Amino acid sequence: MTAAAGKASRFAARGTTQEIEEGLAFAPKFDQDGLISCVVTDATTGEVLMFAHMNEEALARTIETGEAWFYSRSRGTLWRKGESSGHALRVNELRVDCDQDALWIKAQPQGPGACHTGRRSCFYRAVRLKSPAGSTTQLEFREGERVFDPGEVYGRKPKG
Amino acid sequence: MTAAAGKASRFAARGTTQEIEEGLAFAPKFDQDGLISCVVTDATTGEVLMFAHMNEEALARTIETGEAWFYSRSRGTLWRKGESSGHALRVNELRVDCDQDALWIKAQPQGPGACHTGRRSCFYRAVRLKSPAGSTTQLEFREGERVFDPGEVYGRKPKG
Repeated sequence: MTAAAGKASRFAARGTTQEIEEGLAFAPKFDQDGLISCVVTDATTGEVLMFAHMNEEALARTIETGEAWFYSRSRGTLWRKGESSGHALRVNELRVDCDQDALWIKAQPQGPGACHTGRRSCFYRAVRLKSPAGSTTQLEFREGERVFDPGEVYGRKPKG
Repeated sequence: MTAAAGKASRFAARGTTQEIEEGLAFAPKFDQDGLISCVVTDATTGEVLMFAHMNEEALARTIETGEAWFYSRSRGTLWRKGESSGHALRVNELRVDCDQDALWIKAQPQGPGACHTGRRSCFYRAVRLKSPAGSTTQLEFREGERVFDPGEVYGRKPKG
C-alpha cells in the first residue's frame, strides 16, 4: 500500500453532524490549505505550551509515532517538534473537538522548553484587559524567563 | 472617534521579529480571512474547553468587556459566547504567543458547559494512538458525559 493510500484510509470521510459529533470514526476537517489547528498542553502542569498546525501527513505521523509532528506554514514544510532542538513532545493523549476541526495534544515535553525563544511555553505574555478603546493595547511578561539559550540550541537553524 | 478608528489604534503594527517576540506592544497577526486562533482553558482546572477564532472586532470586545467574543466562520457572524446558552466565559487572563498569531484565554465559565453538545469541554473524545497505517483511526469517549441538555438550552437556536 502506498503512503497516499495509507493516509486516505486512516481518516474517515466527513459524515452527518450526528456522526461527526457523537461518532467514533476520526474524520478530521482540514481547512482550504489542508491544515488543522492543534494546541499542545503540558500533560503534567496543564499549561498551554504551543499552538501549531498539522497537515494530513503530520497528523498521520503523530498517530503512528506518538511524537508531535506539525506543518510549518512559513517554511512550507513538515517538521517533527524537536528535530532541531532535541526538545521533542511525547504525546500522552490526542483529543479532537466536537466538530473535529481542532486537536488538543497532552504532551510530555522531552526538553526544558517548547518555545523557540527559549521559554517553557510560547505564551509568555499577557494582554492587558479592559484598556479603553482608542488606546494601544499593551502586553506584560508572565513566566517569561528563559529555560534554555536559543542561540546555543538552534544556532542559525530554523525553529523546531 | 469611530469604532473603526478605535480598532485600528488598539493594535500595534507588526514590527520586526524582535519587537513581535520580545516587545510589549500588542500586534496580533490576523490571517488572510482576518482571523486569529484562540484556545480557551478553564482557569481552575486547566482543561481545554474550546477552540475558536476571533476577528479584530471580537478581540477588541473581549479586551474591553472581559468576556469572550468570537467570530463564527460557519455563520459569518460575531458572537459572544453564552449569548444563546447563558454560558458566558469570563476572561481571567488573555495570553498571546511568541509570534503573536495565537491567543490563549484562561476563563471562568459562567455555566456548566462550554460545548454546544452539552459537555463541559468540546474535547470529549481521544484519538487512538499508534494504530497501524492503513487502518481507519478510531476515537474513544473521555469525560463525555453531558452536563446540560442542549435541546433545552438552545432550542433550535444556533450554538453559542
